[in-house]
Amino acid sequence: MKRKGILVVVSGFSGAGKGTLMKNLIKKYDNYALSISMTTRMPREGEMDGREYFFVSKETFEEKAKQGGLVEYACYCDNYYGTPREYVEAQLEMGKDVILEIEIQGALKIKEKFPSALLLFVMPPSANQLRDRLAGRGTETQEVIDKRLRRAAEEAEGIESYDYIVINDDLEVCTKELHSIIFAAHNAVDRNEGFIENMRQELNVLVKGEK
Amino acid sequence: MKRKGILVVVSGFSGAGKGTLMKNLIKKYDNYALSISMTTRMPREGEMDGREYFFVSKETFEEKAKQGGLVEYACYCDNYYGTPREYVEAQLEMGKDVILEIEIQGALKIKEKFPSALLLFVMPPSANQLRDRLAGRGTETQEVIDKRLRRAAEEAEGIESYDYIVINDDLEVCTKELHSIIFAAHNAVDRNEGFIENMRQELNVLVKGEK
Repeated sequence: MKRKGILVVVSGFSGAGKGTLMKNLIKKYDNYALSISMTTRMPREGEMDGREYFFVSKETFEEKAKQGGLVEYACYCDNYYGTPREYVEAQLEMGKDVILEIEIQGALKIKEKFPSALLLFVMPPSANQLRDRLAGRGTETQEVIDKRLRRAAEEAEGIESYDYIVINDDLEVCTKELHSIIFAAHNAVDRNEGFIENMRQELNVLVKGEK
Repeated sequence: MKRKGILVVVSGFSGAGKGTLMKNLIKKYDNYALSISMTTRMPREGEMDGREYFFVSKETFEEKAKQGGLVEYACYCDNYYGTPREYVEAQLEMGKDVILEIEIQGALKIKEKFPSALLLFVMPPSANQLRDRLAGRGTETQEVIDKRLRRAAEEAEGIESYDYIVINDDLEVCTKELHSIIFAAHNAVDRNEGFIENMRQELNVLVKGEK
């Protein structure tokens, strides 16, 4: 049975360790493809076109959106961010599970357009640990930390829109859990309608044949 | 975080290999408890009270049912079959995932009473393989095989009431898949409402504390 890939949306609080988790997941297992977003914001130091993002002009982005070439897009801080459709669909067809690391608004748009998408939310073991991690980076001002915590409190209101939570305490344990959730999702009844219908028809043929 | 067990219902066509699969699952992993049904039918040769079933009189069974001591029960071929409540609830409290191997009618009753129960359906890779397995036992008459195939065709109509299917081709692969599905189910958002609510409150305390 040739199985199609699953569209997996991963969201989570800033500081929950999503980025490291995604990198580890893709390194460990070969059934994943990470979708790269398109943005109109300027590349930051060290960012490379086609690795962190596809960096494009506002005109290119708007043209792409107009042509239906983005599965979702949104505007933050005067910049567009979106998910190119072509890559996602090609990888799903090839049987790859495609990971989109996007925020809650984008996640809800995806769920609307692709009801069989799997929505995962990465959480720290506790709020205090989130605060400590944000502070521990040592690169952020208190103001930025407070802003992130306020944003986490807001985002936490939307967790019920997701299918699963993953608690990122130990990186390896969490990676395994994440993989296990996606692996199991392939067996959901609503992702196997073709196989089930086929089994019914085969059984009916056998039952009729016996008469 | 002390986690509660999940009530797992396993159904499947006769000949799909449920019994062997359950035995292998319980042998390999220590988080499972297999619920033993109570029945009024007579023990067959080799069956032991408290292992295959709890064998009781009709009066004992009906008294148990009247007192609410069964999570579900049904009557097949003039005999009662039911799931004793006490064992199931004690094991769930201890954090064990409790497996009920029951038929579709019982499965639907469980889902009604325990909406967070996980319903799994074990299938053979194909209908022809099911027929070959039933015939291959060499112990069944053609009439019995035909009856089982007709019953499988009927049961196949109800698969959409289940959450996941498991295709039993290779025993070890299938056991791992089954375990992975149950393991992943612990992370479902609706099984972690307490943790999520707690995180929200902690975040709100931090956000208010900063002001």
